[in-house]
Amino acid sequence: MLVNHGMNQLASLSIARSYSFASSIAAVLRRQSFLIRARGGGVHNKVHSTTAGITMQETEADAVSILRAITPTLDPTRHKGQAGKIAVIGGCREYTGAPYFAAISALKIGADLSHVFCTKDAAPVIKSYSPELIVHPVLEESYSVREEERKQVSAKVVAEVDKWMERFDCLVVGPGLGRDPFLLDCVSEIMKQARHSNVPIVVDGDGLFLVANSLHLVHGYPLAVLTPNVNEYKRLVQTVLKCEVDDADAHGQLSSLAKQIGGVTILRKGRSDLISDGDIVNSVSICGSPRRCGGQGDILSGSFLLVLVLQYFYLGHAKPFVAADRNPTVLGCIAGSALLRKAASLAFETRKRSTLTTDIIECLGRSLEDICPAY
Amino acid sequence: MLVNHGMNQLASLSIARSYSFASSIAAVLRRQSFLIRARGGGVHNKVHSTTAGITMQETEADAVSILRAITPTLDPTRHKGQAGKIAVIGGCREYTGAPYFAAISALKIGADLSHVFCTKDAAPVIKSYSPELIVHPVLEESYSVREEERKQVSAKVVAEVDKWMERFDCLVVGPGLGRDPFLLDCVSEIMKQARHSNVPIVVDGDGLFLVANSLHLVHGYPLAVLTPNVNEYKRLVQTVLKCEVDDADAHGQLSSLAKQIGGVTILRKGRSDLISDGDIVNSVSICGSPRRCGGQGDILSGSFLLVLVLQYFYLGHAKPFVAADRNPTVLGCIAGSALLRKAASLAFETRKRSTLTTDIIECLGRSLEDICPAY
Repeated sequence: MLVNHGMNQLASLSIARSYSFASSIAAVLRRQSFLIRARGGGVHNKVHSTTAGITMQETEADAVSILRAITPTLDPTRHKGQAGKIAVIGGCREYTGAPYFAAISALKIGADLSHVFCTKDAAPVIKSYSPELIVHPVLEESYSVREEERKQVSAKVVAEVDKWMERFDCLVVGPGLGRDPFLLDCVSEIMKQARHSNVPIVVDGDGLFLVANSLHLVHGYPLAVLTPNVNEYKRLVQTVLKCEVDDADAHGQLSSLAKQIGGVTILRKGRSDLISDGDIVNSVSICGSPRRCGGQGDILSGSFLLVLVLQYFYLGHAKPFVAADRNPTVLGCIAGSALLRKAASLAFETRKRSTLTTDIIECLGRSLEDICPAY
Repeated sequence: MLVNHGMNQLASLSIARSYSFASSIAAVLRRQSFLIRARGGGVHNKVHSTTAGITMQETEADAVSILRAITPTLDPTRHKGQAGKIAVIGGCREYTGAPYFAAISALKIGADLSHVFCTKDAAPVIKSYSPELIVHPVLEESYSVREEERKQVSAKVVAEVDKWMERFDCLVVGPGLGRDPFLLDCVSEIMKQARHSNVPIVVDGDGLFLVANSLHLVHGYPLAVLTPNVNEYKRLVQTVLKCEVDDADAHGQLSSLAKQIGGVTILRKGRSDLISDGDIVNSVSICGSPRRCGGQGDILSGSFLLVLVLQYFYLGHAKPFVAADRNPTVLGCIAGSALLRKAASLAFETRKRSTLTTDIIECLGRSLEDICPAY
């Protein structure tokens, strides 16, 4: 009986492994196809270009159309995970809200699974915010690691994340990451692994601090998306272009910045969100809210921005509207931006000055439903 | 490569520092301007004076007008942080609710970022109440620090808070602080640093216990606001005026007390809230609720009281009504008091005897919206 049981276990393991292997192969193929589209899109895309003012209305319409085009038709034959699995790398002793906002937002717009990789201190707190998230307490900060152990601990941390890497459709690096040097070194290695596996990477918050100091982590990677706010953008411009932000040439400067970082996609958050991969600049100014409570950026950049597009480009759901020659990361940014702005506007309608990030997250579902009904 | 990486890091750090420096300079200038107004206001203000009874109605109208005048017009061109960043110093092994109430209230009336500096035991709990707060587990209590380590630990605690100090528009000292002697010694040093940086300080709860025993911490500081309840007021009167509370001369005694502490602003919480900086006494008796659940004081004194006024006086939004010769800390107290009383009244309408502090916090947004609509 014991032996049989053991045999069964082995057989099950073997089946699980072969399933996992097949699943990994499929994931690899999906990501390679995504990479090819992103590379192509960066050069040939024909996304509608605008400058602020006269043509703004057309861009807003475009954002809604893109969102409608790339939002999947719900399909009861699909199984768990097929509508997107994302992971957030962030959450430390000081910051726990930001990774939660990023991870839960992905679920709220339709992703199936949302993971968070954070420090041991942060994990119980992030877990307590929601039972929906899978939270891995694997990151370490300098204060908890002795000098002589660092190499070994770093390798262990990177391996812990890497064993999940193949399963993820998108990695979000930065929300609530903090700036501990040892932790950032580990995260650099994780980013290298993600890039090696062609996993798209959205970089926000302290991830942008890391990237500004180590541009090689994203340089020339067409599946990297940077989502700077006003201060983070300023730092990027100063570091990369060696000049100050010039709002009179906002579009030209954003395009140059994206080009200089080898064609990554940049979403510059502001009154209008500006998006470029070094070619054309797209702006999204639909809806929005005048509240600037901390955490809104985590919703946008943290996760859901790319999940939408992943659902389509990865899983073969793209509708005819979404031509193969459009850069999927740019489309993801446009769709994500429109969705957040609509949600923020809905939350503000009810909550006014007391609108908080959790209120906006609660409106994400209605925002998507208003633009693109489930049935 | 290593050298280059190091150089890049140095360059980036230098850019980050210069940006941070420019931002700090702006904050210093804002605070200096605020200090000048507070000093001027203390001597020359012309806030409508009342005594209980006959003219009470007029004061109530005044509170609403002040709230309307100092509440900012929402401006979509502003970015995160520009509508106020506050910090609460409080939260220990025993008390975690009070600092949460104080910090979340600030967000609920429009502040962008709200930090809490508390003990290591308290941090995970306060974090778990809301992902909107940034909670720093930096304070230490006697039981966790050996005698010989105290000096070193104290310096570290103070440095941890001080590195954030320049960013804050207001510090709230006391909600859930406890009375541990080592912790209070550290908080004394933090208050000195805040005063050195001209950061306004609201003192409540156990912060008032500390201040009653160390008056020099706030004496003569025009940006200090004390918000005693009945017992805390009694202790202050006994310690400073060396007599008992005399309700027959409530206005005169409050004015004397504020004068004796060098012109700080005192908000005496009660059936009517009485406010004075040593000159005129203002009373606010609008709305209110007969419920006296623990925590209401934290909402009022903990944070939002000054945030409103800071948004205006700091950020140049003051409307013509708010003359430069009025003490902004007094105006902040009047506005904060009116807002809390209205929220408490709204909560009581629905919840009656079961009204809790969280119910009142949920009504803060509607309270502000009723008095001063967002659009």
